Amino acid sequence: MAKRPVTMRDIATRVGVHTSTVSRVLNSDTPGMVSREVAARVRKAAEELGYQLNPFARSLKTNRSQTVGVIVPDLTDPLFPPILRGIEDTLVAAGYTTLIANSYNDPARDLRSFRTMQERKVDGLVLATARRKDRVVEECVAAGIPVVLVNRTVDRPAVPSVVNDDIAGARLAVEHLIGLGHRRIGHIAGPQDLSTGHDRLVGFLAAMHAGGLAPGEEATVVADGFTVRAGHDATLALLDRAPGITAIVTASDMLALGSYTALAARGLDCPGDVSVTGFNDMTFSDKFCPPLSSVRTRHTDLGTEAARLLLRIIEGEKVGDLSIVLKPTFVARGSTAAPGKASLARSCAPA
Amino acid sequence: MAKRPVTMRDIATRVGVHTSTVSRVLNSDTPGMVSREVAARVRKAAEELGYQLNPFARSLKTNRSQTVGVIVPDLTDPLFPPILRGIEDTLVAAGYTTLIANSYNDPARDLRSFRTMQERKVDGLVLATARRKDRVVEECVAAGIPVVLVNRTVDRPAVPSVVNDDIAGARLAVEHLIGLGHRRIGHIAGPQDLSTGHDRLVGFLAAMHAGGLAPGEEATVVADGFTVRAGHDATLALLDRAPGITAIVTASDMLALGSYTALAARGLDCPGDVSVTGFNDMTFSDKFCPPLSSVRTRHTDLGTEAARLLLRIIEGEKVGDLSIVLKPTFVARGSTAAPGKASLARSCAPA
Repeated sequence: MAKRPVTMRDIATRVGVHTSTVSRVLNSDTPGMVSREVAARVRKAAEELGYQLNPFARSLKTNRSQTVGVIVPDLTDPLFPPILRGIEDTLVAAGYTTLIANSYNDPARDLRSFRTMQERKVDGLVLATARRKDRVVEECVAAGIPVVLVNRTVDRPAVPSVVNDDIAGARLAVEHLIGLGHRRIGHIAGPQDLSTGHDRLVGFLAAMHAGGLAPGEEATVVADGFTVRAGHDATLALLDRAPGITAIVTASDMLALGSYTALAARGLDCPGDVSVTGFNDMTFSDKFCPPLSSVRTRHTDLGTEAARLLLRIIEGEKVGDLSIVLKPTFVARGSTAAPGKASLARSCAPA
Repeated sequence: MAKRPVTMRDIATRVGVHTSTVSRVLNSDTPGMVSREVAARVRKAAEELGYQLNPFARSLKTNRSQTVGVIVPDLTDPLFPPILRGIEDTLVAAGYTTLIANSYNDPARDLRSFRTMQERKVDGLVLATARRKDRVVEECVAAGIPVVLVNRTVDRPAVPSVVNDDIAGARLAVEHLIGLGHRRIGHIAGPQDLSTGHDRLVGFLAAMHAGGLAPGEEATVVADGFTVRAGHDATLALLDRAPGITAIVTASDMLALGSYTALAARGLDCPGDVSVTGFNDMTFSDKFCPPLSSVRTRHTDLGTEAARLLLRIIEGEKVGDLSIVLKPTFVARGSTAAPGKASLARSCAPA
């Protein structure tokens, strides 16, 4: 059972090169010194022989674990897997391993995941879990651990981040609805302790104001979370407070799905009676009934940019509080129409 | 920057107990010797002070890393996040940390993730990536690493697994369609190097035979992967080979979504012209247009049972090649109807 571990010497013998060549390829800190063809043969032989790099020996040499931790709030929300994919693909290509943890929107679990990552001496962290005031972010900064926030950011301290322009995104949704002729527009806001929930509400109010409309407090309800259930409950509350609305801007696609079920529960047709917009254009948005009009954000790019930024920081670059902001667009589908327009012919057929 | 690390003694001083009490609580190998109230205070103090358990010191004592690796094929398929959640919740409750890796259906990435997990001395692995012949599984067995397969299994060697009864699931779909009056039924099969793809095809053929129907080879097309795109392409091929079919049993909900787009591309209505069944009843199946009739599998339970089984093996129990098989049920929705039944009133309204 206890076979002798495969060594770099074994690989060197198999390929017919010097052990130092094998080391250069597998440690990849001086890859330019070996031809691409030889490097490929070495990697193939290492894989075939089942060679295991000793991460501790390697860490002693480079002072790096070549590992990055990623903490995400909830992978069952289809928004996050594509962000994760962008992060993983970029880090893997750079020779890093990612350790992923799911915190399920529980700050205590965020903290536990962070401690585990710390113990495993990750070279840096990408956090998709940031609240506007976030203990894990504060501890990262205090401990000097390279960190990049993705999708959500904090109010302070200044931490590098890659986020969407959420204010602009909400404005696109409002402008779309105003363009269709809507005047009485409600907003299902996300949790206000998250930058996404906060900024989208700000964007909604600003756009309503710019459009010459006064939303009034009664036309905004803050949901308990970015979930279908929270969207359902918040929409029922919104319909009670502002029964005359003809359109709802929601702060996420999951909330929008909750609006669908709440409208149906009240016997209201979407978009015949009430138009609904989502936010994120997550996977499957085009397949729902009706297909969801939504603010399109660049999920995979968010992850890719966050990983690239983290790699720059790990390499020692001083990026300061650099924030990369991606611009959203708007995708109009079957869930929005001119107010009062009957939707006898539902646009639910898969296109 | 280099603060002195927090020690168990610091926690003991804060709580007002002996250091050995703190050790008992935090190492959790003799938890019964400390009252629940004291344990809670110790854990709270440890968290507040930012105490980090030294995993290497602990490993020396227990010979365990208290870490389990989980390799999943693709988190962008909504089937896998709930399975992962079942695994994580069970392991976290048992005091383990999970390291997750995504292999994106790439066997080379499976292998790389496995090597990383090995290097990090995981106590065991849950693999959702198994192919019927799988190198990583073989290496796990050869190295004596505790491993449990989830959702998919291998032909050999005998490895503990938690899977659905895929043959029974396919039968439920066929019986549902026969019950509606369908006779000419096609199958979009999954990849045949995966147990799920293979067993669902076997179940389909067996149920057609049992129902007195001869499907003929032309009514089955094997898709390249469990993706919407593969389902779309396979459905177009199926319609070319067997234009008279009135129903399609697909081997996954992602494939079924591909059938939707392929039928629409051919100007065919679902379920008016062709009924479609999915497999897994993944998140959002009830929200598609039309809502998808599907074989319901117990996603979270798959993960929970797999984690429990792995914990038994890690604790030293000899479970042999125990296989836990979960029974599926069938959920009828708007994508299936009696053959030739016009669907003027689409059942796409969110319910």
